[in-house]
Amino acid sequence: MKRYGALEAGGTKMVMAVADEEGKILERTSIPTQTPEETMPEMAAFFAERSVEALGIGCFGPLDLNPASPSYGRITATPKLAWRNYPILQAFREKLGIPAALDTDVNGAALAESVLGAAKGLDSCLYVTVGTGIGGGLIIHGKPVHGLMHPEIGHIRVRPAPGDPMPEGICPYHGCCAEGMASGPSIQKRWGVSAKELPPEHPAWETEADYLAQLCADAMLSFSPEKIILGGGVMQQKFLFPVIREKTLAMLGGYISSPAVEAGLADYITEPGLGTESGILGAYLLARQA
Amino acid sequence: MKRYGALEAGGTKMVMAVADEEGKILERTSIPTQTPEETMPEMAAFFAERSVEALGIGCFGPLDLNPASPSYGRITATPKLAWRNYPILQAFREKLGIPAALDTDVNGAALAESVLGAAKGLDSCLYVTVGTGIGGGLIIHGKPVHGLMHPEIGHIRVRPAPGDPMPEGICPYHGCCAEGMASGPSIQKRWGVSAKELPPEHPAWETEADYLAQLCADAMLSFSPEKIILGGGVMQQKFLFPVIREKTLAMLGGYISSPAVEAGLADYITEPGLGTESGILGAYLLARQA
Repeated sequence: MKRYGALEAGGTKMVMAVADEEGKILERTSIPTQTPEETMPEMAAFFAERSVEALGIGCFGPLDLNPASPSYGRITATPKLAWRNYPILQAFREKLGIPAALDTDVNGAALAESVLGAAKGLDSCLYVTVGTGIGGGLIIHGKPVHGLMHPEIGHIRVRPAPGDPMPEGICPYHGCCAEGMASGPSIQKRWGVSAKELPPEHPAWETEADYLAQLCADAMLSFSPEKIILGGGVMQQKFLFPVIREKTLAMLGGYISSPAVEAGLADYITEPGLGTESGILGAYLLARQA
Repeated sequence: MKRYGALEAGGTKMVMAVADEEGKILERTSIPTQTPEETMPEMAAFFAERSVEALGIGCFGPLDLNPASPSYGRITATPKLAWRNYPILQAFREKLGIPAALDTDVNGAALAESVLGAAKGLDSCLYVTVGTGIGGGLIIHGKPVHGLMHPEIGHIRVRPAPGDPMPEGICPYHGCCAEGMASGPSIQKRWGVSAKELPPEHPAWETEADYLAQLCADAMLSFSPEKIILGGGVMQQKFLFPVIREKTLAMLGGYISSPAVEAGLADYITEPGLGTESGILGAYLLARQA
């Protein structure tokens, strides 16, 4: 039976897995993300030793995903300086001599959710991770969206939520964008404690839900996904979901007519169907397509 | 040679055309939009007399474009009450007995621009019309986007522009959305004169460009189109383009790396390649696909 390599490349750790033709994870390990010189040989050795047919990489970004570009397959303007401009796709292709495919970590997760998870059977979905940053992966017409660069919906501007004590935001590029207002670090900065330590009745969560509802309403109006999946560390606070749904509906103001809206978005703004496995299964699906 | 029918269905007038296999418009006429009882027989007779093979309809919305829905092919929550819930697609199919296809007027225009116009050869584009309302059509992976309903990017919320004397907006659903702030009627309401009467040096245009730049920056971050095409009556003020480009770049804050951004968006935020013909040619392309 054929074996496929899957790499979920993150800024903190690299998760490597081997899966069979049916997507069953046979083996998995992770190593800390250091410099390419330190980390790449170890990863290449892992996949080489396991004789995988192909490799899929879901990677932190931004990435150059335009096959016609001279810097295709590189990590571009990342704040992780050792990886800036690193040609991760080409490096794996050369080291392993097998087909390899690259996409953003969030596009990988969106792909996995659309093939195997919460958006199975649908033509489109938006997957958003809310954690250290806010990132969005987008499937439309069954395929990940790249376009000019790739979606970076975490950086759309939002409006300060009513009563927000930190209305200026912390994004170094945009200040008051979704990531600047609603990421884990912005919660920490605003309230002085981490998201995990804030009790459900704390006003922090009304503020948080406002920003995530702005993102959801904006997505629904802009490109009309058939499902919005919210994952990542901050969304482990499950009580956020009904608050986000309610605020999204209020912001839409009755403008979008759809059974999903009439049902209060209950099945529309939803948790990942694959739990925390969306990322690695996305990388596996990229390997299958490589 | 085969002949195709094209209908650009607007709230004010219905533009009907017949085109040949190469997209050449052979004949064109328009009639005022009255009630379906008054307008439909006249339109059906026009196309029946010309023995068209198929009909494409680019229609004002919102529309139900989900083939699995019981109200597929209907105009839904339009303020034009006589047309609300009118099954325009089914009515033409029954009256003419030929294949017919329906999409939003702006998706039709986006399709025409992507096949024949400013986005020719690209996989994706956003077409926005700025006039009585603000509507957006979206092509991704070469096909119009529908999703949950269809894009309604004119209704994304924006932030009041610096010094805007009417920061609350006029959209009955959202107040301060792009349409509520930057449509022709909102310009008229804010300044007491129509867009056509405002000279280029009037502060109205800085305000207008701010809102349209918010829309462009938001689109680039959300779904990353390869080109943004701005058409419609308000965009006849061509001096708006460089101002919108400059403000969009400022809002992106250096976050998106792309040759288009490095080139100052000069070829990226652009006029329609088909002038005012995008709509009718879009309807023709829909007929070809029907």
